[in-house]
Amino acid sequence: MSVESLARRLSAISAHLDTNTMSRPKVVIARHLGPDVMPLFNRPDLDVVTWHSETEACSRKWLLENICGAAGVLVMLGDGKVDAEFLDTAGPNLRVVSTMSVGYEHINLKELAQRNVKLGYTPDVLTDAVADVSIMLALMAGRNARETTTIWPNCPWSPFQFCGPQLSANWIHQTRTAGFIGFGRIAQATLARLIPFGFTHCLYSGNPGSAPNTARDAELARTHKLQSVRRVTLDELARGSDVVFVLAPSSPDTRHIVNEGFLKQMKKTAVLVNTARGTLVDSDALAKALREGWLWGAGIDVVEGEPNVTTEHPLVKEPRCAVLPHIGSATTETRLGMATMAAKNLIAGVLDGEMPAELNLIREVLR
Amino acid sequence: MSVESLARRLSAISAHLDTNTMSRPKVVIARHLGPDVMPLFNRPDLDVVTWHSETEACSRKWLLENICGAAGVLVMLGDGKVDAEFLDTAGPNLRVVSTMSVGYEHINLKELAQRNVKLGYTPDVLTDAVADVSIMLALMAGRNARETTTIWPNCPWSPFQFCGPQLSANWIHQTRTAGFIGFGRIAQATLARLIPFGFTHCLYSGNPGSAPNTARDAELARTHKLQSVRRVTLDELARGSDVVFVLAPSSPDTRHIVNEGFLKQMKKTAVLVNTARGTLVDSDALAKALREGWLWGAGIDVVEGEPNVTTEHPLVKEPRCAVLPHIGSATTETRLGMATMAAKNLIAGVLDGEMPAELNLIREVLR
Repeated sequence: MSVESLARRLSAISAHLDTNTMSRPKVVIARHLGPDVMPLFNRPDLDVVTWHSETEACSRKWLLENICGAAGVLVMLGDGKVDAEFLDTAGPNLRVVSTMSVGYEHINLKELAQRNVKLGYTPDVLTDAVADVSIMLALMAGRNARETTTIWPNCPWSPFQFCGPQLSANWIHQTRTAGFIGFGRIAQATLARLIPFGFTHCLYSGNPGSAPNTARDAELARTHKLQSVRRVTLDELARGSDVVFVLAPSSPDTRHIVNEGFLKQMKKTAVLVNTARGTLVDSDALAKALREGWLWGAGIDVVEGEPNVTTEHPLVKEPRCAVLPHIGSATTETRLGMATMAAKNLIAGVLDGEMPAELNLIREVLR
Repeated sequence: MSVESLARRLSAISAHLDTNTMSRPKVVIARHLGPDVMPLFNRPDLDVVTWHSETEACSRKWLLENICGAAGVLVMLGDGKVDAEFLDTAGPNLRVVSTMSVGYEHINLKELAQRNVKLGYTPDVLTDAVADVSIMLALMAGRNARETTTIWPNCPWSPFQFCGPQLSANWIHQTRTAGFIGFGRIAQATLARLIPFGFTHCLYSGNPGSAPNTARDAELARTHKLQSVRRVTLDELARGSDVVFVLAPSSPDTRHIVNEGFLKQMKKTAVLVNTARGTLVDSDALAKALREGWLWGAGIDVVEGEPNVTTEHPLVKEPRCAVLPHIGSATTETRLGMATMAAKNLIAGVLDGEMPAELNLIREVLR
């Protein structure tokens, strides 16, 4: 253990004693959450420490200095890892970590569970916003939205110029198949949006450890008047889908789940949409696939290597790949909902109230 | 009448005599329609003259020289006007004009009707493709798709960055209202696509000369489980809509139907989508409205002044306006369908068969 680390532990213990004396738990907000949400923390029973900026992330140094003795910490996806160092530095007062995100790959769940620290996250509230962007990217990928707007208006109209495959059912293709890698809330909300486009079939791949849910699938098919909803292998999904949506969580198991082998099996007229996490798609393989025409186009809201992405990233350079800057949940309403939920998770977790959305850590760690 | 014009008439009359002698009607195709469609014209009963290029429009000179004595002419929207000069030059043999478009503002219907020349066009086949792009632009306009992709990745993630209004229903806005200027096939296909986004109300403005269709509206509301479908004034439409779709035909009556007065009444969080014709929207007024925040954003597939658009166009310059190069119907399937239908309209019109889609000229002229 280094001297710095020892000093931090000491500071944590003395802060712990202070806090107990004052009986006013300290909470650390690692990002300013703006004028609509911050007033939630104006309460006499909390000692609130807030990083000053909404647009700039706090440094690791600031974070470790300030979380000593904290009972709760609110973090963002991009604000660094919640790991053993973080938790040791915070010390034994820590009761809750609240993340303003539905994903929690930046958080070491096992370390949290071992210390009996709760985790709050923000599911559901962002489902519709991300499903909206999934549809937008499926359309942008098929219609070459990036390429056309780049070369136009230096290019006059002609009958077959800029033509791409049609997302909706048409006189040539009367059936349409959507494929989902991961079939949770966002995937199902995306599927619902595809129905009036004339989609007739749904394929999905699930967590290999989980049992198929044929009753749910039959019910989905009935509700949406689909000819079929089927859990299939990744190979069958790649071969059968007109559009593939990547909507699985990020984990070592899902890293590069879309790789050369997958992309080579896709229809030449199909498109790939990634609104989950950049790590699920092998960027070099997708760039090669787009250049060589293994599939028609791609639309991605997430890029491998985030948040350190430059214009030299193979997918950012690729004209047949529409790239958005991780704005899946970026609507005013949804981000306000996420920030509010993260704040309420933090406050309830610290004050022993019921958290609006607490992750079941034991189930996740044992999975 | 000029000497040139006299010479053309003479040429038309002699071509008429020739054609009658040979009894093989001449058809002129003003654009090459590609390897999938051109074989439709490989038939012994037609004398086919084709402009050589798919990507480049023929000149007016080539067109007038070649249509002399033609029984049918196939044209595109951007290939110049079908007016008295065109029809006089073609001469009395002309039986049909076939346009590969659903719009016919480039064609003088009255002059056609007076000469008893039929008009073929391509409705229905492009409805779904244009509805797809209407949804894509509604999403792109709300999510700042143009602005975000322009400034990123030189701009890190933060909780409220890039946020726009959410298209789908959400915890803050549980009702969503779509407004349609023009409520024909494409508008209704667009409305259907909005239902799983949680839309609850539909407003539309119709041709002032036509009677309201309350039975149809009640049926639409019932089918889509909407709380209301109502024909309203333009003012009410502007004030009440979360997204306004411009989907009326181009005519002197609809020119600049979206003007300063309309835009000033829109919600500050609403978006405007134009997938009809550029002339329906006052470009300067929309650019001003976007700069001054009268509405949130716009997405347009059509630009006033097409096909002569430069990067200096006020809307092409405007970061809050997503601009596409008139690709509403540009899917491989739909453009093939349109070209095939235009070819079949031409052949049937010339050979006295039943045209797949003939415009009722008398009804349109009397409207």
